[in-house]
Amino acid sequence: MKIAQVTPLYEAVPPKLYGGTERVVAHLTDALVDLGHEVTLFASADAETRARLIPVRDQAIRLDPAPLKSDLAAHMTMLAEVLKRADDFDVIHFHTDIIHFPFFSACADKTVTTLHGRLDLKDLPGVYERWPEFGLVSISDDQRKPLPFASWKATVHHGMPAELYRFSPKSEGYLAFLGRISPEKRPDRAIEIATKLNKPLKMAAKVDAQDRVYWETVIRPMVENNPLVEFIGEIGDHQKSAFLGGAEALLFPIDWPEPFGLVMIEAMACGTPVVAFRCGSSPEIVEDGATGYLVDTIEQAVAAAGRVHLLDREAIRARYELRFSATAMARRYLDVYGDLLARRPFAEEPMDDVILPLRAHEDRTFAFRA
Amino acid sequence: MKIAQVTPLYEAVPPKLYGGTERVVAHLTDALVDLGHEVTLFASADAETRARLIPVRDQAIRLDPAPLKSDLAAHMTMLAEVLKRADDFDVIHFHTDIIHFPFFSACADKTVTTLHGRLDLKDLPGVYERWPEFGLVSISDDQRKPLPFASWKATVHHGMPAELYRFSPKSEGYLAFLGRISPEKRPDRAIEIATKLNKPLKMAAKVDAQDRVYWETVIRPMVENNPLVEFIGEIGDHQKSAFLGGAEALLFPIDWPEPFGLVMIEAMACGTPVVAFRCGSSPEIVEDGATGYLVDTIEQAVAAAGRVHLLDREAIRARYELRFSATAMARRYLDVYGDLLARRPFAEEPMDDVILPLRAHEDRTFAFRA
Repeated sequence: MKIAQVTPLYEAVPPKLYGGTERVVAHLTDALVDLGHEVTLFASADAETRARLIPVRDQAIRLDPAPLKSDLAAHMTMLAEVLKRADDFDVIHFHTDIIHFPFFSACADKTVTTLHGRLDLKDLPGVYERWPEFGLVSISDDQRKPLPFASWKATVHHGMPAELYRFSPKSEGYLAFLGRISPEKRPDRAIEIATKLNKPLKMAAKVDAQDRVYWETVIRPMVENNPLVEFIGEIGDHQKSAFLGGAEALLFPIDWPEPFGLVMIEAMACGTPVVAFRCGSSPEIVEDGATGYLVDTIEQAVAAAGRVHLLDREAIRARYELRFSATAMARRYLDVYGDLLARRPFAEEPMDDVILPLRAHEDRTFAFRA
Repeated sequence: MKIAQVTPLYEAVPPKLYGGTERVVAHLTDALVDLGHEVTLFASADAETRARLIPVRDQAIRLDPAPLKSDLAAHMTMLAEVLKRADDFDVIHFHTDIIHFPFFSACADKTVTTLHGRLDLKDLPGVYERWPEFGLVSISDDQRKPLPFASWKATVHHGMPAELYRFSPKSEGYLAFLGRISPEKRPDRAIEIATKLNKPLKMAAKVDAQDRVYWETVIRPMVENNPLVEFIGEIGDHQKSAFLGGAEALLFPIDWPEPFGLVMIEAMACGTPVVAFRCGSSPEIVEDGATGYLVDTIEQAVAAAGRVHLLDREAIRARYELRFSATAMARRYLDVYGDLLARRPFAEEPMDDVILPLRAHEDRTFAFRA
């Protein structure tokens, strides 16, 4: 299949530092190449990809030192380039939110649009009502809630390449928090859980400029007065396996409808279970009692974090490979592309989710090892 | 003529507080109605206009208390609405930068686009190269410099309604600074000029969040230790006539290529001369030795501010009415619309600027009164 991938231009593909969307685009693109498809990536010239790259800007926008830039102009230039070559592709897969809609109205039937952000914004319904011809993919079912009427074609969970993370058969007995220090990520809850459990907590987190006051006034005092808490700042990709793999559990105490929490599958890739608050995508990612626990309160989180050692780390890694590897993601997208092209007119209806949910009591490999 | 005006949605039309672009759109729209045209304004529902209003959002974006909004989605919804009704108009006049280009490619020949912002941004040339079919209007000749190849049709200077400002025949002997406290507006230069001249300076200025550090570390100490300087904070439209009209001169010591400095014509409307650094649009707005002085250094500015009482305040007001009233602006735009429609196939070439430059030595009404 001839597939175009069209990424946002904010970060390099994959990003040098942060950036979820461009990271997912990078891994999806490479996985599609590995599965034998002819893939073209429209991105900035600093992309590293196994696909054919069509560079549309000299570098990604955010780290570009040029003092004056226009995000909108950069994306419009890219989209004009994609449109010029639209006939070269069977499918054009956009990761650019809504900005391509006015360009591709006339050939929307050969496009797929994955929405990567939250959708509970005041102005969005009007746009999705006006451009219903664009088939949409959500990154979790939960993400769709604010726009139930939109042209949803599938949910495809994110995946990350299995070889990026090292499986860790044994933990080193600490709890982990990984993310930004921001109120909606609830690092305060992570500290409270560890404290109540009297367990060490390692926090790998960056503090953005806009969260500086929250850090100084709320979190820093909690960290500094707590001998259980070790704050190690920001970490890079190459440090993640050691950090996450060493943890007895990842705490994911979020308080906002995050459409997909990548860090949960990164932990699972290392064999580390996740204690997640039931919010946003977490109930779709964490299989309660198997790959972690879903909780609604601090008390439940403390209880869950106290029994994570009962879960089977090898089974968690296996579950990650099955459901959240980049290859799994690419295969799901190939189904979506196939549906779009009606190349399989006599095929069975695609199943809603070909992977059946697992429960501890149904499968001995997830049984408590107590 | 059936004219559509399409405004940005950031501020109300006219803005409740700040906002140059939406203010100019408001006054242009009303002036076109007053000149007998059938004008439709696409804007948020809080617009106050003499034209027919098509509301495309319940309120302007910036002061909308909704926690999560999408600027892009709001503008896309508006542009889809304009496109649906495109056949209703002879001319569609956009003030929305570049965002409408992909929507209106097929009918670009009935559009005019006024660019309101600075154009020295890295990503802009690519866009103007790709959409040359859109005829552009600059708000000063200087604004065009970064994009000389673009499809320029005319320069139309901004205008403001004459009745908004009260002419003040006599000053109260102070110098004035009006604007944001930001490094490129150079309030420090204004203070230096007043200090060297030993003249009182009144500063009416807001301090945005992003300029807080500059205010605290650079300007506030200069203000607090200087008995000549009175800082009166932010002022509203209804206070401008008294503030500007009472001044012997407006100091406009900018250090960035501002495409059009509205405050210069506001001062002129009150009869107040302008001492402007030669930068951006100022040489096109200030007629040196007649409506103010153009300077390149602090020393020149001090000398100029010392002789502004020699200029004729009535002549300055008259010059404003001729060149910078809303009606003057609307007439210039009607020329542009007329050219566009080729409604005047046998007309003479439009003159570059029908108003000839004035110099003090050419016209006795501008002679020094010493």
